[in-house]
Order: sequence, then C-alpha cells, then structure tokens
Amino acid sequence: MTATIPETVDRPACIRLDESDPLGHVRARFCMPESVVYMDGNSLGALPAQTQPRLAHVVDNEWGAALVRSWTDAQWIDAPLRAGAKIARLVGAHEDEVLVSDTTTVNLFKLATAALQARPSRRVLVTERENFPTDLYVTEGITTLLPGRVARVVDRASLRDALDEDVALLALTEVDFRTGEVHAMAELTEAAHTAGALVLWDLSHSAGVLPIDLDGAGADLAAGCGYKYLNGGPGAPAFLFVSRRLQEELRNPIQGFLGHEAPFAMEPAYRPARGIRSWMTSSPSIIAIAALESAVDLALELDIEQVADKARSLTQLFIHLADARLARFGFELASPRDPGRRGAQVSLHHRSAYGVVRALIDRGVVPDFRNPDICRFGMAPLYTRYVDVWDAVQRTVEVMEAGSHADPSYAERSYVT
Amino acid sequence: MTATIPETVDRPACIRLDESDPLGHVRARFCMPESVVYMDGNSLGALPAQTQPRLAHVVDNEWGAALVRSWTDAQWIDAPLRAGAKIARLVGAHEDEVLVSDTTTVNLFKLATAALQARPSRRVLVTERENFPTDLYVTEGITTLLPGRVARVVDRASLRDALDEDVALLALTEVDFRTGEVHAMAELTEAAHTAGALVLWDLSHSAGVLPIDLDGAGADLAAGCGYKYLNGGPGAPAFLFVSRRLQEELRNPIQGFLGHEAPFAMEPAYRPARGIRSWMTSSPSIIAIAALESAVDLALELDIEQVADKARSLTQLFIHLADARLARFGFELASPRDPGRRGAQVSLHHRSAYGVVRALIDRGVVPDFRNPDICRFGMAPLYTRYVDVWDAVQRTVEVMEAGSHADPSYAERSYVT
Repeated sequence: MTATIPETVDRPACIRLDESDPLGHVRARFCMPESVVYMDGNSLGALPAQTQPRLAHVVDNEWGAALVRSWTDAQWIDAPLRAGAKIARLVGAHEDEVLVSDTTTVNLFKLATAALQARPSRRVLVTERENFPTDLYVTEGITTLLPGRVARVVDRASLRDALDEDVALLALTEVDFRTGEVHAMAELTEAAHTAGALVLWDLSHSAGVLPIDLDGAGADLAAGCGYKYLNGGPGAPAFLFVSRRLQEELRNPIQGFLGHEAPFAMEPAYRPARGIRSWMTSSPSIIAIAALESAVDLALELDIEQVADKARSLTQLFIHLADARLARFGFELASPRDPGRRGAQVSLHHRSAYGVVRALIDRGVVPDFRNPDICRFGMAPLYTRYVDVWDAVQRTVEVMEAGSHADPSYAERSYVT
Repeated sequence: MTATIPETVDRPACIRLDESDPLGHVRARFCMPESVVYMDGNSLGALPAQTQPRLAHVVDNEWGAALVRSWTDAQWIDAPLRAGAKIARLVGAHEDEVLVSDTTTVNLFKLATAALQARPSRRVLVTERENFPTDLYVTEGITTLLPGRVARVVDRASLRDALDEDVALLALTEVDFRTGEVHAMAELTEAAHTAGALVLWDLSHSAGVLPIDLDGAGADLAAGCGYKYLNGGPGAPAFLFVSRRLQEELRNPIQGFLGHEAPFAMEPAYRPARGIRSWMTSSPSIIAIAALESAVDLALELDIEQVADKARSLTQLFIHLADARLARFGFELASPRDPGRRGAQVSLHHRSAYGVVRALIDRGVVPDFRNPDICRFGMAPLYTRYVDVWDAVQRTVEVMEAGSHADPSYAERSYVT
C-alpha cells in the first residue's frame, strides 16, 4: 500500500515513514555510502552486499581453480538463460522468453532488425522523438543499413496516428528517461497489432521498479538495461525478450556460435538454436552476468507491487516537497503528477539545471542532469529512504538560497552521466 | 631465443628446461590449480593473481562507494579506449586504433558490415571453409541481411585465386583454431589490397601469444577475443581494430549513444564520434573490462618475442615427444611442423579423439576436443611449463596403454568447450 504523506511534513516525519516502511530493511542489503544522498539509481544502481562475495567465488573458484571445466560444472554455458529466466519473473514473461545478452543497443539492433526482416512488405519503423537517444540512433542505423526501410519519428501524441499499413515495427521506451512518464504498454501494443505491426519495448527505466506484464500486454519484443534498477553493476549485460509466438519466425541477424543449435559441433553452416538461445552471439562475460544475477536474486525476494508502491510514495513525497519548497526558485515539475503514469523518478525543469545538479553533487546529493534543463532525481525503492527525499529537497533549498548553482566553475560542462 | 630441446628428453630434462626458462617466474603471477596439467589456455586463459584484488577494488570502491561518480572519477568512461590502447601494443597497432568492445561476434559483425557498405560496387566477402564457425556464421548472417551480397567460402589453398574485382572484403582468422596453422598476414593483406579488397583479421588465437604487426602488415580491420591468451576471464570483452586510414570512411552499423560524438548531449540525431570511439555501442561492463585490463597489464610487462619463442619451444617439445611416444597409438600431427607457421598449440588427429580428451580430463590433464577427430593441446607460455608438456604426453601414453579412452561412459558427448 502506498504510504500516506502527511500534509505538513518535516524531517522527523520522513524518518517515521522510513521506520514504518515494509521495505525499510532492504537498504541494509546494499553497500550504501553513508556520506551521500544517492538519487541516481536510474543511471547506476547500487551494489548489493551479496554481489562481491558472489563475484569472488566466480573469479577464484570457478575461473581460477576449475578453469575451463566451469563451462559445464558451474553451468556457465546456461548463465545467460538462467539469469534471463529470473528477469522474466520481473517483467511478466515466461522463463524461456528472456535472455541476458550483449548491451541494450546491440539487443535493440538485433530485435528491430529481425522484426523488419520478418515484415518485408512493410517499410516503416515508428518511434517517438522523445525516445532515449540510443534507441533513436540504433533505429537510424538500421534504416540506413536496410534498403527501403525508413524511420517515422513522431511526437508522443501522434504515435497512434502514425500506425498505418506501412508500419512493420513500433519501438518505444516504456518509461521516458527525461520525465519518467509511463507509456500505456497494453493499449499501445494493441493499437500496433491492430495496424498489423510488431512492438518492441525498451524496459531500461522500468525493469526492477515497476510491475511489467509483457505477456499480458501481448508484447512481441523487449530489451532492457541491467545496470539501472536491476543493480547489475556498471555496464551490466542487458536482456532481451522474444515472445514465444515469434521465436520460430524471427531470426537473429548477428549469427554467433553460441546461438547455434549445436555450438560445439562446429558445423560450417548456421542452424539457429530453438527458442531464446538463438539470440546469443558469442561467449558473454560470466563475471558480469554473475553480478547481474546476484542482484536479480535479491529483487526476486521482494514483492514488485510493494516496490512500485514505495516508488509512488517516494516520488509523491518529493513532488509534495518540491511544490511547497522549490517552486519559488523557478523549478517546474517535468514528471506526471498522476502516480499511475510516473516511473520511479521526479524530474524538475530549471533554467540553471546543470549548475543546480553540480552544486548538489558537490554537497553530497547525487541527482543527474539531462539536457537541456532537467534535474532528475531517481528514487530506487530498494535503498532510497524517505529521509533521503527530505534531505535532497532541503539541500536544494540551501543551494538555491546561497546561489551555489551559479558557481563559475560549473560553466564548463564536465559531467558525463 | 627458442630453447634447445635435447634429442633424448625425460622428465628431469623438462624440469631443467623450466629452471632455465626466462619466463619461468611468470607462472607464479597466475592462480594455477596444482592438481591439473592445464593445456586449454587457448579456450580459457588462466586467472592472473592481480585480477581478483583489482576487481574487488572496482566493485567495492568504484561501484559500491563512489557509485555513478566513477564514470568520471575512476575514468570508467575511457575504460574501453584505455584497455584498447594497451592491447594495441600487443598487436602492432597505434593506441587510437584499438577498442575493447562487445563480443568477438558482434565486433566481426560491425566491421564486416561496415566494410561491405564502404565498397558498394563489390558484392563478395571471401573467407575460408576452415575459419572458426562464428566467423562463418556471422558472415552468412551479414550476406543474408544485405541484399546482393554473397559470401565466397573457399579452401585455404584457393584464397588468393578467390580475390577478384568483385571482392569487397577478405575475412580470415590468423591462427586456425583446429590446427594452429598461421596465415601469412602481410602477404594475404597485400594480395587482397592488390585486388582492391579490404581485409579483416580475427586475432582470437594469436593475440597475446604471437607477435602481431597489424600496421606493418597494412591490415585494415581486426577483431579478437579477450579470454584466450589474453587471460581476461570467461567471456571477457573482445577488442576491435580499425586502421587510422579507414576511421573516417567506415561507419559502425550498430549506432549506440556511447559511439556518438557527444554522448551526454543526448542529441536526437546520430553524429559518430571521431576515431575509434565511434565503434562503441552502449555502456560496456566495467567489471569485465577491468579483468581484461588487469591481465593485459601483466602481458605488457613481458617481451612478446620471448613469449612467442617459448610457445615455439613448448610446442616443439610436444611434437618431439608425440613423434617418439604417441605415434604408435595412431595419433597424427595436425599442426604444422614448421614452428614459424604454428601458433601456441599442438593438435593431434586420432580416431578416438573425443574419448582420449575425456580420459585425460578425468586424469587431470586438460586439452580439448575439436570435431571431428582433434585432440588440441594449448600451450600458454605465461604459465605452461615444459614439465606440463611431459606430463601431458606421459598421461596420454598411460591412457592409451590402459584403453581408458574407450570407457563406455564417454559414448555420450557432454563436453561443451
């Protein structure tokens, strides 16, 4: 149940919210630096305490001591499928529909290319102008590569109108990276299907923090990031989803030996493996997958509805405090007020957004900046506390009152995430 | 200088060779299990002792404590370039020509696709039938994807004849994974250039163990594996090379935000970064790159000519012993006798190769099996000893004399690497 935010809230009230938070105990499962208020789990998730010993075991015992035998004895060969099956439970998919593989961009490339190839009579890939840049770039690359294919990049409001009989694929990110606005996955999927198109969902800003029901929504394809709310570590492997309905039909364009039906037969011709395994390319980093799997194991101990409830409460508290205390400094809410349409972040427009973010980071609060004018505060329910929300807003008030955001040293932009 | 193998060699003589080996001290820099004779470093390289503390630092301090700040403060953002620049020194390239990125298959896909797109008037990609399966599969996938392009797959002896005015790209692996035979890189590159084609070299079985001179050979493109002789860990990230000559001309078909000229400007349109950075896709695993970089740091302490000398000595010793002691059991040399044409492995044909390999593994010697009839003994000069060669051959003699290779439990093939 979403926590009730008292009308008049102060720091002690936030501490009381933490004390009664049913997920309050989860923060201790992470190695959180106590000196910072971390509001950037939507860029890089925190380190689960169980990950370092898990990696030490993989490195010392599985790699160092057992060496190549671990491909069988430690089931390295199935690690991408095993971790994928676990992520499937977080995204409403069957266990044989999800694979951990490559990076988000490479997975988007594989899936979108396969979808276009599977619909040769339709030439258009539809996406939205506000999509994450990688999604736009990879789309542009595919349509440059494949003769006769074009991208139709439209505003969010025009998406449904853009779906006509020429469209092979609708490719969208479920949660907007700038504003946190959530697309209606089931409705848009249905609209695309009605137009005869396939749908590819990028779950990078939703997996691990919102309930997702890929199969319930009738989704065809999806990909997502392992290092945001999934807490898989910096540059963690990504995942992809291919609906059972399409596993026979679609073909991975990047044909590697691990996607072969008999990888170690070393046959001269490619025979795609049956099922999700055919979306593998070559050997993935076992250490990187182990870090991701360790974090997913932790997530699977929790109730995703409870996680999403806490995300709504944290962001609601932030919006409440921002309305009351930050509006006078020129901040404007960029995220939806409706908690049902909002991911686990609150974004604020400000004309000095870059300076505000830098000043906050220099004072131990870590949001991030997104071009051109957005301060983005991510709230990861597994380790973000209500008191962190209070402290982030309080520190922002202090920065604005002192004018710290106008520090001349922030004139040169060096901030990269 | 290559060690002189005495005509009559026994185990004490091998121990003496180890004692006078100028690289003998390097084995202690690895975490080698003492209970096995490891002859499979060409499938999975061993764990450098310095890697585990390095990873613990990356995980605990850079990720856990510093979180997203490490993209700048710990230079994560440059890790693929920094590790690439180090590998460049092992493969005869300029530091700005090599990038650590994705997997071998994905890199082959990016480079071969880009090469074909850059030579639109030529429709053929030439490769050899004996190439590593992933190289063949990825080639087949590309020619399926790109209309009008075809793969011309020929025998090794016919490669030069296959180079005509239709050829856009010659794609070869420098060291044959089955036999260890080395291609003449400079000569074949020149032949391809004379025909007007570009050349892509797969260095998976040569990087880290043979001196490679990509720039000296005039090579255009290359890719390679991080987890064999580079000791980067299971499924380590791969690397790619693009000659300075081609960096302006060729374009990465998988356009991700980290390959953009200004990744964090989040511009709607793709502008490729200048130079090798444009071959990145999205955020790579920082932990996996750290493991690879740690191993490359160790390799760079050594003289690659000395490493290659030891590889020749080890393989020469193995061949000498195999001639003397294994021929009578039906083993036939599959690798070149000429040490100048041989990588760091010795492969033996045997009609019961699979059983022989399984029996050896069960007795603490780890070669690997390659279809249809090859026992492959890899000799990684950084940690393989002369006495290991003796013990491997001795154990093979014992297996054959006892008939252990015919154990009925080996009838079902479960061995995956």
